[in-house]
Amino acid sequence: MKIVALAGGVGGAKLADGLAQNLAAEDLTVIVNVGDDFTHMGLYICPDLDTVCYTLAGLANPDTGWGRSGESWTVYDHVVKLGGPDWFHLGDKDIATHLERTRLLNEGKLLSEIVAAFCKKWGVPVNVLPVSNDPIPTIVSTKDKGELSFQDYFVRNRCEPVVTGFRFAGIENATLTPGILDAIHAADGIIICPSNPYVSIAPILSVPGLMDEVKKKKVVAVSPIVGGKAIKGPAAKMFQEMGIDASSVEVARQYQDFLTGFILDTVDSEYAGEIQRSGIISLVTNTVMQTINDRKRLASEVLSFCEGIF
Amino acid sequence: MKIVALAGGVGGAKLADGLAQNLAAEDLTVIVNVGDDFTHMGLYICPDLDTVCYTLAGLANPDTGWGRSGESWTVYDHVVKLGGPDWFHLGDKDIATHLERTRLLNEGKLLSEIVAAFCKKWGVPVNVLPVSNDPIPTIVSTKDKGELSFQDYFVRNRCEPVVTGFRFAGIENATLTPGILDAIHAADGIIICPSNPYVSIAPILSVPGLMDEVKKKKVVAVSPIVGGKAIKGPAAKMFQEMGIDASSVEVARQYQDFLTGFILDTVDSEYAGEIQRSGIISLVTNTVMQTINDRKRLASEVLSFCEGIF
Repeated sequence: MKIVALAGGVGGAKLADGLAQNLAAEDLTVIVNVGDDFTHMGLYICPDLDTVCYTLAGLANPDTGWGRSGESWTVYDHVVKLGGPDWFHLGDKDIATHLERTRLLNEGKLLSEIVAAFCKKWGVPVNVLPVSNDPIPTIVSTKDKGELSFQDYFVRNRCEPVVTGFRFAGIENATLTPGILDAIHAADGIIICPSNPYVSIAPILSVPGLMDEVKKKKVVAVSPIVGGKAIKGPAAKMFQEMGIDASSVEVARQYQDFLTGFILDTVDSEYAGEIQRSGIISLVTNTVMQTINDRKRLASEVLSFCEGIF
Repeated sequence: MKIVALAGGVGGAKLADGLAQNLAAEDLTVIVNVGDDFTHMGLYICPDLDTVCYTLAGLANPDTGWGRSGESWTVYDHVVKLGGPDWFHLGDKDIATHLERTRLLNEGKLLSEIVAAFCKKWGVPVNVLPVSNDPIPTIVSTKDKGELSFQDYFVRNRCEPVVTGFRFAGIENATLTPGILDAIHAADGIIICPSNPYVSIAPILSVPGLMDEVKKKKVVAVSPIVGGKAIKGPAAKMFQEMGIDASSVEVARQYQDFLTGFILDTVDSEYAGEIQRSGIISLVTNTVMQTINDRKRLASEVLSFCEGIF
C-alpha cells in the first residue's frame, strides 16, 4: 500500500514514525506543516518539520517531543547571559540544523531540497516533504491580543490568549512542493495524523491545489483529541474557544467533506455510532502513543483499517 | 597616565590585558581592528574584537589565543555532519556571542554599543571601541589567487598565498566610532600593541580622521616581530612577500612618520642603535608574553618607558 501522511508536530511525527516502521520506505510520503516556521535570531526554524525528521531519524528527545535527544544548551545559556531572548529554547544540536538550513536557504536552495539532504544525512529513509517551499506563517487571531505570530502565541504566550481564528499569510500565492501531487496520485490513500486540525492540518490542506487532489482520494484521519483533551498542545483549548466541543466527533466533523474513515480512542467509543451515522467508517482503538512500540502498533492497526477502505 | 592602545588580535589582546592590569579602568581605551570582521553562516563575526574582549574578561582560550576557554564544539560538529562548512571553527559559547551580536545589529544597534553591552556583561572594565561601526573588510591581494577576503586568506587558505598588497573596502567613507577622538584628545599618549602592521594596525590608522589626531600625540609601538618571526600569525611572511626584511627595525620603519618610541625584543638588540639613529627612542626588553604575568610585566615596562616620553 502506498500512503501519503499529513503531519504537524509531535503526534503527527509519532504516527509517521509508526507508519515508517510498517511500510517500505518508497511507499510512504509524509507531507509536513510549515505554518509554524519562523525566523528567530536570524535562524530559519521549522519546528514541525524538524520534529518529524528527528522523530523518523530516532534523534528526537523522547521527553519533550520536540528537539533532540542528548541535547546541550551552551549557546542558549550564553545568549541569555548576554541579555538575549530567553523565551524560545534552542539546543546546540538543533541550532546546527537551523544554522545550516539558513545558510542553504540564503544560498538559494529550496526548503524541500534542504529537508531531503538533511534526511539523507540523518538516515531518514522515507520521503518527507514540506507542504510548500513558500513561507505561509500561521497568524493566530486572539480575543485580547489581536493577531499573534504562531510562535508568539504558542511559546511566548504559552497558548494562553483566547483564539478567535487563524490565517496563513501569503497562502493564496503559495505553491505545493514539487513531488506532492505525484505522491498523492500514486497513493492508495491519505492518512491525516493526530495533529492539530487548525494549526497543523489546515495550513497543509489550504495550500492551493492540494484539497482538490485530496478529495479524489480515500482519506483516513486519527483523532488528536482523546477524552476531550489533546495529547499534546492546544487543540482542545482551541476547539472550545472556537465554540466547538473538544471531542473526537468534532474532529471528524472538521474533516467531513473529504473523510472516509476515522480512528478514535477507546475512551471516546461513545462517539463511534454518531460518526458512523454521518457516513464515516470508524475504528475504535487505543490511539495514545507512549512508547515507540505504541507507534508501530497503532500504525499497524491504522494500515489494516485503511486496507479495508482504500 | 591616560592611554589609548591600538590592538588587533592575540598579541594586541595580551598587551591590552597587561595594560588593563596596570592602569585604572578609566585610564585605558583600547581601539580595535574590525577589518577582519566577516559574515559566516549568517553570523556577524568580529575575531579581533572578540579576542580582545575575551582576553580582557579572562574568558579567552589560553592555548589557541582565539575563542573561549572551556569551549565545546557541538554546533560546529553537527553543522559539519550536515555537510556544512568546516573551514572556520566556531565554539558553542562563541556562537552565542555571534548570534546575539547579529540579532542586535539587525535590530539597528551599533557595533560599538553592542561591544559596550557585552563588555559590561563579561566584566571588562576598560573602554573597548571598534575603530569604526562601518564595515571595512580587509581585502588581501595575492600573487596567484587574486583578491581574497581576509578570512578566506587567513583561515581557509592558511595564509599560504603570496601577498602583494592590502586594501580595506569602503574605508574612504568609514567614520570613527564616537568616543575615539575624545579618548585620543584626553590621552597622554598612544601605544601600538604588538599586532600585525598590515592587517591589524593599518586598518585602524586608515579610518579617515584618525591619523591626523595620532600624529598630534606621542606614539610608542611594541614590535610584533621577534627574531625575524611573528609570535603568531603571518606578519613576518607578509613583510618578506612585500619585499621587506621581516625584522623589528622594519616594523619601526612602517610607523616612522608618527613614532616617538619603539620597544623591541632582546633577541633583536642589534637593531636598537639603528632605530635610535632614525630618531626613535628605543627600549630593548623581553617582549614575549607566555603567561598572564608576562603581560603585566611587559605592560609595566611599556608604561614606564612611556612615562619618560609622554
